[in-house]
Amino acid sequence: MLINMQKTASRVDIAAVLDQLSKQGIDAQVVRQAESAVVIVANGSSGDNVRSLSGSPGVDKVLDIDQPFKLASRQARHESTIVNVSGVKIGGSDIVVMAGPCSVESREQILATAVAVKKMGAKILRGGAYKPRTSPYEFQGLGVTALELLREARELTGLPIVTEVMGTDDVDLVCKYADMLQIGARNMQNFALLRRLATCGKPVMLKRSPAATVREWLLAAEYLLVGGNADVVLCERGVRGFERETRNTLDVNAIALAKQLSHLPVIADPSHATGRRELVAPAAKAAIGAGADGLLIEVHPNPDSALSDGTQSLKFNEFDDLMHSLREPMRRLA
Amino acid sequence: MLINMQKTASRVDIAAVLDQLSKQGIDAQVVRQAESAVVIVANGSSGDNVRSLSGSPGVDKVLDIDQPFKLASRQARHESTIVNVSGVKIGGSDIVVMAGPCSVESREQILATAVAVKKMGAKILRGGAYKPRTSPYEFQGLGVTALELLREARELTGLPIVTEVMGTDDVDLVCKYADMLQIGARNMQNFALLRRLATCGKPVMLKRSPAATVREWLLAAEYLLVGGNADVVLCERGVRGFERETRNTLDVNAIALAKQLSHLPVIADPSHATGRRELVAPAAKAAIGAGADGLLIEVHPNPDSALSDGTQSLKFNEFDDLMHSLREPMRRLA
Amino acid sequence: MLINMQKTASRVDIAAVLDQLSKQGIDAQVVRQAESAVVIVANGSSGDNVRSLSGSPGVDKVLDIDQPFKLASRQARHESTIVNVSGVKIGGSDIVVMAGPCSVESREQILATAVAVKKMGAKILRGGAYKPRTSPYEFQGLGVTALELLREARELTGLPIVTEVMGTDDVDLVCKYADMLQIGARNMQNFALLRRLATCGKPVMLKRSPAATVREWLLAAEYLLVGGNADVVLCERGVRGFERETRNTLDVNAIALAKQLSHLPVIADPSHATGRRELVAPAAKAAIGAGADGLLIEVHPNPDSALSDGTQSLKFNEFDDLMHSLREPMRRLA
Amino acid sequence: MLINMQKTASRVDIAAVLDQLSKQGIDAQVVRQAESAVVIVANGSSGDNVRSLSGSPGVDKVLDIDQPFKLASRQARHESTIVNVSGVKIGGSDIVVMAGPCSVESREQILATAVAVKKMGAKILRGGAYKPRTSPYEFQGLGVTALELLREARELTGLPIVTEVMGTDDVDLVCKYADMLQIGARNMQNFALLRRLATCGKPVMLKRSPAATVREWLLAAEYLLVGGNADVVLCERGVRGFERETRNTLDVNAIALAKQLSHLPVIADPSHATGRRELVAPAAKAAIGAGADGLLIEVHPNPDSALSDGTQSLKFNEFDDLMHSLREPMRRLA
Repeated sequence: MLINMQKTASRVDIAAVLDQLSKQGIDAQVVRQAESAVVIVANGSSGDNVRSLSGSPGVDKVLDIDQPFKLASRQARHESTIVNVSGVKIGGSDIVVMAGPCSVESREQILATAVAVKKMGAKILRGGAYKPRTSPYEFQGLGVTALELLREARELTGLPIVTEVMGTDDVDLVCKYADMLQIGARNMQNFALLRRLATCGKPVMLKRSPAATVREWLLAAEYLLVGGNADVVLCERGVRGFERETRNTLDVNAIALAKQLSHLPVIADPSHATGRRELVAPAAKAAIGAGADGLLIEVHPNPDSALSDGTQSLKFNEFDDLMHSLREPMRRLA
Repeated sequence: MLINMQKTASRVDIAAVLDQLSKQGIDAQVVRQAESAVVIVANGSSGDNVRSLSGSPGVDKVLDIDQPFKLASRQARHESTIVNVSGVKIGGSDIVVMAGPCSVESREQILATAVAVKKMGAKILRGGAYKPRTSPYEFQGLGVTALELLREARELTGLPIVTEVMGTDDVDLVCKYADMLQIGARNMQNFALLRRLATCGKPVMLKRSPAATVREWLLAAEYLLVGGNADVVLCERGVRGFERETRNTLDVNAIALAKQLSHLPVIADPSHATGRRELVAPAAKAAIGAGADGLLIEVHPNPDSALSDGTQSLKFNEFDDLMHSLREPMRRLA
Repeated sequence: MLINMQKTASRVDIAAVLDQLSKQGIDAQVVRQAESAVVIVANGSSGDNVRSLSGSPGVDKVLDIDQPFKLASRQARHESTIVNVSGVKIGGSDIVVMAGPCSVESREQILATAVAVKKMGAKILRGGAYKPRTSPYEFQGLGVTALELLREARELTGLPIVTEVMGTDDVDLVCKYADMLQIGARNMQNFALLRRLATCGKPVMLKRSPAATVREWLLAAEYLLVGGNADVVLCERGVRGFERETRNTLDVNAIALAKQLSHLPVIADPSHATGRRELVAPAAKAAIGAGADGLLIEVHPNPDSALSDGTQSLKFNEFDDLMHSLREPMRRLA
Repeated sequence: MLINMQKTASRVDIAAVLDQLSKQGIDAQVVRQAESAVVIVANGSSGDNVRSLSGSPGVDKVLDIDQPFKLASRQARHESTIVNVSGVKIGGSDIVVMAGPCSVESREQILATAVAVKKMGAKILRGGAYKPRTSPYEFQGLGVTALELLREARELTGLPIVTEVMGTDDVDLVCKYADMLQIGARNMQNFALLRRLATCGKPVMLKRSPAATVREWLLAAEYLLVGGNADVVLCERGVRGFERETRNTLDVNAIALAKQLSHLPVIADPSHATGRRELVAPAAKAAIGAGADGLLIEVHPNPDSALSDGTQSLKFNEFDDLMHSLREPMRRLA
C-alpha cells in the first residue's frame, strides 16, 4: 500500500505517519518525489491499520496497490508520466523518435548522422560510447572520446543525447555528457547500477531484458523510482524466442501491457527487436499501433562498414523514408 | 526452381518440358493453377540445365527460387494474392475483419452475434463447430448442429463463414457449410489434413503453430499450394513464450516477414495472441501496423458464460469500440 | 473425481452408480479397463455427493483427483504402469532401448540395422514408413513398402516394431504391421488421431510436442486413456528454445515431472532432443538420471547418406559404444 | 588464433612476436597465465602470417581456434581444467557438491546448515550475503553481517565458501571472506563486473543467464580468462521456457555442449533449474548423467520459513537422502 502525502505536508506530518505505522509493527519507507512524498508500506501489512491513517494530518490518500511494483503502477498514479529530456517530452501526445548509430565510431560519422536525423525529424540523438559486447574481442566503444563527440553533436544540432552506461564507476562521467542514461538489456537486473542511477539526477531509459517478464521489467523500474528517480522511460527491444531468421521478437503485447499496468512512458527499439533492416519500418508501426510513445532507431551513414549492428541499421535515405511513412496516415478499416 | 508455363501452353508443351527434364535426370512435378501450370523442379537440380528450357514452346519463365517454399514465395509471384471468400476479398486494399464466438453454443448466441458483428462492420463470421480442446473433459463443440446454425447465420446476415476442420474425416461435411476452412494452430503440421484440404475446393485459413518458425509456416502453406489449392490465408495467432501474464505473444515480426517472403495474405488473431480482452485492441492495431491484411476477433454476447475462451472474447460494445477505433486515424508522427 | 468399480462389479452396479449421479445432476462417463471399469465424474461436481457413493454395490473406491488429467494421474493409479509391447515391458525395472533409422530407406538398410541393433542390445526396432516432413519437397517415406520391410526385419530378428502413423486413414494399415504406433510430436494434439488410436488395440507411443507443457502432454495421453487404450508410453524428445547450436533442448524436468504426476512410462529421444550425434550419449544418460524408462535412438548404417536426420543418427559402432556406456556404472559421488 | 609461448619464453621473445605481428598489421594481445603466456591474435588476421611464427624463439605452438571464445575453448586446451577452491578440486574425477541456504538469515541458521551439509558430504558451503531480488521490497540479504557469519561457518566446519558478488564496489569486501565468488545469472553479461573479477585473485563461479546461448556463456567466461583469471567454474541453472509448472528448465544439452566445447568445469544448480523441491534429486542425477562436475544445492533448516527460495530448498533429511542416492549406483542398462 502507498500513503500519498499532501504537497503541503510537513516533515512532522510524515514523521507522525511513520510513527503510527511503527507502533502497529508496520515497516514503511518514505520516497520524496518532485512535489510531495509517498510512504511505502511493506507487503503483508494489515490494510485496515494503514487505511485508518487516511484522515491524519498531511495525508492525501491511502492507496491499495495489487501489483508488486507500487510506484510504477497506474494504481499509484492514474495519469501518464511525461519524462522531460532536456526539453523533449516523452509520454505525451507526440511520438518521439530517437535515432543515431549503434556506436560512435568517428567525429565525421556521428556529426553527419546527428545532422541528418535532426533534419529528418528525430528529437533525440542516440550513440554508444561504452558498448556491451558478447565477445571481449569485439569493438568495445570509444569511451570518453565518444562522449566528447556526442557533446559536440549536441552543440551542433541541439539534439539531447541518450547513451548507455555499463557500470557504476562510469555513472558520474556519463552524467556529465548525457541528457538521458540508458540501461542496456543485459543490465536490466544489475541492481547495483539501478540503485546508483536512482540518484544520478538524469532521466533513465530502461531497456527490457530479452527474457524478462513485464512484471520483472516494471520491478526493475521500481528500483529507480523507490530510489528517488521518477524520470524513467521503458524501452521494449524484443524478446528472445525460437525464430532463427530474426534477432529477436518485438513484443507488442508487452508494450500494451506495460502501458496499462504502469504510468511510465514506453518506447520501442525495432532495430534490435528485428535485427533486419527491412523489418524495421513495419515493426516501428506495429509498436505505435500497440501504444508506444516513441521509437529508438539505429541509423548509420554506411551500415555495411559499421563496427556493430550493421545489418539492422538504416541508411539515411531509409530513415528518411521511415519518418515519412510514420507521418502518413496508417492503414485503417474502410 | 519453377518453370511457369504460358496460359496457352498445351498438354503437349508441358509433357515436352517434363520429358526434357527427365532426360537430364531431373525430377519435376506439375501443379495446375487457375490460369496456367507450373513445373516444380526438384531441389539440387542443375540450374543451367533448367534455364536452358526457357525458350521451349509454352514456357513463360524459368524462376530461381532461393526459399525452400517455392509456390508460396514472392519470388514465384511478385504480386500479392487476393483470396476471395464468397465475395469478400482478403489481401487487397481493405482490411477484413472476421468475428464471432470461439464456439457456436446455441442458436440464439450465434445469430445474435452474427447480426451484431455484421452491423458493426465484420465481413466474415467465425464460429467453432469442432473444437480442439486440450482436455477431453472440456466442451468439444456442437459439431453438425453448429454447422447448421452457422448456415442459418449466413442466410440471415449474408456473412460468409469460416470454421475449423479438425480431421480428414470431417472435410466433406464441413465443406458443405463453410466458405473458408480453418486449420487450427495445433494442426499446422498435420500433413494428412493439409493434403486433404489441398483438394477441397474451398479457401483455407492456415493458423501458425505457436512454436513454428515463419519458414515452417510457409512450408505448411506450400503443402496446400503444391496440392492444388492457391487460396490460402495465413493467420498469426501468437507464439508461445515465457511471459506468464498473457496467453501468447503476438509476433508482429512474423507478420512483416511473411508479407515480405510470401505473396499470400496474412491476418492476425489478437484474441488468442493475447488471451486478455483488454489487450485485444492494441494488439489488433499493432498487427495492422505490421502489415496484416485482416483480423480474426472473438466476440461473444456474454463472455463470462462462454464455454471456451471467455477471458479473451469481446462483448458486443467492446467489439463496436474496437471497430470504431480501427476506422479512426492511427497515431502518427507530428 | 473417479469412481473405481470392483473387478466383480456388474453392469447393473455400474448403471446404478450412473443413475444416482444423474439424479443429482452430475455428468459422468464409464471407461472399461482391462480388469475393471472406472466412472469419470465431470469437473465441478459436488465432491460430497460423489463420495456418498463409496459404499454402493460394486464400488471399490472414490478418488479425488486434483489434476486435470485423471486416468493418467498417479492419484488414479499409484503403481507405475508397465506397457507390454509384444513381450517387451516398458516401465518396469529394465531400461528399454528402441533403435533404428529415422526412415526405412531400403531392404538392405533396415535389415542390416535391425540385426546390428538387436545384437547390441536394442529391444525394439524403430523405423519410419510415413514421415512428417516440414517441406513437401522432402522425402516422405516409403509407405507400405517400408511397412513390409519392417515386418521382414521383425521376422528376421524378433524385435517388435514401433513406427509412426500420421493420419486416421492409415491406422488400420499400420496396425497390421506395427507392435506399437507412434504419434509424432507435430500430432500430439491431433485429437482426431488420438481418438482413433484410443481404439486401435495396440500400444501407443505419444511424443511430446516441442512446445507442449507437461500438463498438455498428459492431457493428450488422457484422450487415449479415456477412449479405452491404457497402453500409452510417453516420449520426451526435446523442447524448442532459443539455443541455435542444438535442434532442441532435452527437457529432463519434464521427464521427472511426468514420472511424478503420472503412472505412465516415460522414455526419451536424445537424437531429436539434441540433433547432434556427439550429444546423444550424454543426453541419453541425463534422461536416465532423470528417471526415464527407456530410450529411442536413431541409428543408420551410413548417416551421411541418410534421407532424413543424418546429423543426429549414430553409426553402428557409435550405437555400440553408447550401449556399452549405458551398461557401465554411471558416475557417482565419491 | 592463439600463440602459446613456452614456459621459458622471455619478455623479449614475447615482444618479438608482437613486433612481427605488428609489422604485418596484425593486432594481438598477451595474456599471462599461471605458467606461460598466450598471444591472442585478432579475428580476421591472415592465418598463414600467424602460422609463420611457429618457429620463432619462445613460441610453443600456434593454434587455430574456430570458436569465437578462444582461451575457453578445448581447442586452446585439450585437457580439462581443474579449479582449486581452497583445496577442493572442481573438474577432476570427483563430483563436488556445494550446499547451503539461498540467503544467510541468522547465525543459527547458517552454522546449523554448515555443520549438517558438511556431515552429509558437501565440500563447499554456499550462502547469499548480497541477494539480487526481482523486487526492491524483497529481502536483500544481510550484507557484511552475512559475510562474517559465513567466515564463522568456515572456521567451524572447514568448508570453503562460495557467495555472490553483485557489483564492482563490493568485490574487495567479498574477496576478503569468500573462497570463490559467484556471478549471478542476471549478471552473466555485466561486463564491468566480469572485468573486475578477472583480476580479483579468487576463483569465480559464472552462472549462465536463463536466456543465454552456450556461446554467450562461454564468451562471458572468456572475459574472465582474457582478463587474467583462469579459475572459472561454469554453472548451469536452468533456462527460461514456456513451462509454467517449473521455475526454469534444466538444460542438460548445454552441460554436455559446454563440456565438449570448453575445458572449464561445469556444475549444475538443480534447485533453481526446477524451483520445486521434489524435482531436485532427479534433476541432479540428470546433470551428472550429462557430465556435470558438481552440484549446487539449496538447503535450509526450515524451508517453509526461508526468506528466499523456500519452495526449492531441501530440508536436512532431504539433502541427506539426495547425497545417499548420489552415492548409490545409478540405473543402468541390464
